[in-house]
Amino acid sequence: MTPKLKMFFSEGALPTPYLAVDLDRVAKQYRRMVKAMPWAKVFYAVKANPAAPILKTLVRAKAGFDAASIEEVRQCLAAGCAPSDISYGNPIKKSASIAEAASLGVRLFVCDSEEELQKIAQHAPGAKIYTRLGVDNEGADWPLSQKFGASASTCASLLRKASDLGLIPYGVSFHVGSQQGSPAAYIDAIHQAARIFQDVAAHGIKLTMLNIGGGFPVQYRAPVPEIERFASEIDAALTTAFGAARPFIMSEPGRYLVAEAGIVCSEVVLNARRELPGQEGDWLYLDIGRFGGLAETEDEAIRYDIVSLRQQAPQRPFVLAGPTCDGVDILYRKNKVSLPSDLKEGDRVALLAAGAYVSTYSSQGFNGFAPLSEHYI
Amino acid sequence: MTPKLKMFFSEGALPTPYLAVDLDRVAKQYRRMVKAMPWAKVFYAVKANPAAPILKTLVRAKAGFDAASIEEVRQCLAAGCAPSDISYGNPIKKSASIAEAASLGVRLFVCDSEEELQKIAQHAPGAKIYTRLGVDNEGADWPLSQKFGASASTCASLLRKASDLGLIPYGVSFHVGSQQGSPAAYIDAIHQAARIFQDVAAHGIKLTMLNIGGGFPVQYRAPVPEIERFASEIDAALTTAFGAARPFIMSEPGRYLVAEAGIVCSEVVLNARRELPGQEGDWLYLDIGRFGGLAETEDEAIRYDIVSLRQQAPQRPFVLAGPTCDGVDILYRKNKVSLPSDLKEGDRVALLAAGAYVSTYSSQGFNGFAPLSEHYI
Repeated sequence: MTPKLKMFFSEGALPTPYLAVDLDRVAKQYRRMVKAMPWAKVFYAVKANPAAPILKTLVRAKAGFDAASIEEVRQCLAAGCAPSDISYGNPIKKSASIAEAASLGVRLFVCDSEEELQKIAQHAPGAKIYTRLGVDNEGADWPLSQKFGASASTCASLLRKASDLGLIPYGVSFHVGSQQGSPAAYIDAIHQAARIFQDVAAHGIKLTMLNIGGGFPVQYRAPVPEIERFASEIDAALTTAFGAARPFIMSEPGRYLVAEAGIVCSEVVLNARRELPGQEGDWLYLDIGRFGGLAETEDEAIRYDIVSLRQQAPQRPFVLAGPTCDGVDILYRKNKVSLPSDLKEGDRVALLAAGAYVSTYSSQGFNGFAPLSEHYI
Repeated sequence: MTPKLKMFFSEGALPTPYLAVDLDRVAKQYRRMVKAMPWAKVFYAVKANPAAPILKTLVRAKAGFDAASIEEVRQCLAAGCAPSDISYGNPIKKSASIAEAASLGVRLFVCDSEEELQKIAQHAPGAKIYTRLGVDNEGADWPLSQKFGASASTCASLLRKASDLGLIPYGVSFHVGSQQGSPAAYIDAIHQAARIFQDVAAHGIKLTMLNIGGGFPVQYRAPVPEIERFASEIDAALTTAFGAARPFIMSEPGRYLVAEAGIVCSEVVLNARRELPGQEGDWLYLDIGRFGGLAETEDEAIRYDIVSLRQQAPQRPFVLAGPTCDGVDILYRKNKVSLPSDLKEGDRVALLAAGAYVSTYSSQGFNGFAPLSEHYI
């Protein structure tokens, strides 16, 4: 927790649940990323947290942006981003959204199917096209490749067709999954992508961009490799795969830039012992749960580290649950959380590294609970 | 689909995605429920769909309401419900919410732990208390008892303590899970509850209410037993368990009252064939998905029946996915959906029996997508 966040949390003045994000920490993380990978241009994955103060911070830092929808394109432009710094990175888009993005000056689009390529050719004539290569997500805590991605041969064929359709065949992207703990996942994907470059070159098409996606991990409860290790292994693989003819490299960090800059502050609603078979143990019910924004706790995929203001008190492992009547609104049952055993209603806890993938996931009002408030400081 | 919904869907005028609910169908379903179970008073589970037009329809029909939060209590009162017709049915509540509900005239509260009982005694002195008995959810498509519920002996002990604390020990509730296909689940729970009545009677406490919860199923893709069958089996069990001394019976249908009155209308974004291992097949991407309100498709638990306007066209089984970049935003992969094979971008489909547990689940803006619009006709 940064000093600013610690002060904010300790004051305990604001109603819970809330998200607080330290914008200086976002800027610092961006600088670390750029320093580690000076050979890549960052396109921030807006979906991780599209709040205007974050977008403006990153516009000032000269980042590009990866938008998942026309709404995110508009948010980037409203934050002062140039349309040339926006990549429309969702492999499926409505035609109307493609047309609006093109009219706003966006020139860079992804596709992974011929149907989508035809839409782009019709509604964003002359745009730059990159294809999405489907790669293994082994090692990622949150998968991204279950529903998107084409084979290397389809990617090559799409890029040739893009040329025929008057589009600019620009490059290849891949996504190794979110919260990816293994640098090796990128290496393998880079070599697959390089073969697409060679394949289309044999047909007279010169690709000039490789998008290595995001997925760089942040520390929740378990330690993860540092970004510098990812950087050096990816750098080496790029040299092996492309030699002196290295293309323009795009990266799409989302979680990595904003997660560690944020905390979610929540209040205990009930601390009670449960006795029924399958429920035995101590349960802590918070005023935020899976439907209040902590969607990534599904199947306990993302395991937030959680602290209280009284970390010195005797602790006990708790099952953690949200405030709704829904039986699936349980955060951690297998991966219990150690917290002071005497926590009681009204005591506050903070979920660390919670700046990414929380606010927008929040339901608009399940069980009547309003979305958490957001504070960018 | 009711004639009103069919006309609404066929006109195709409104932007998608949207939810449309036929209020006459809600009223009709309520009448059917009351006719089947004239011995029970309905407390509509507001969480299923808290829209004001639905609440007003049910207030006019003289239903009671089961509220999961103070926000839902306020919504019921705003719709014209008397506070005496509201049950605050969430076993965990903030003290401030209990106090506000009490000040608004709500007199009926549930608990399943001593900690919660103490809160109610302090903030709603003199209120009527019922305890929640944990029961088996076998047979339910959506579980409700994973995080709540006490043993029969704890329920009895809580009711005795309620009396000591100046509260009115009122009765017992249970929840057999949502979309429960088996009447037997209720029977077993009724007999367990009856033993609590006997247990506390031996201590001089006469309980007067049994809350049999909701969970009554609606037809998605698979047929379910009719409500009349649940009614007759539950009625018989009540007679066996309580004889002539049958308590006041509360029921808490949510899904049953509103699901079949609603459709979700969505537009196809892409129809594409996938080739990668694990993805092989035809994929249909809609403009609504798991984070746009279809949360109950998690693990394909609730399997919506989906139709297009061209049901006569040759069909093919599709994997169905939502519009976001999230890898888990897949609705049906194992339980594919048969739809016209030539569906293309912009074609509309309707998800049937979608009036419950959709609107409020919707994320407030994941990937930039706004919540679906709602129309009560």
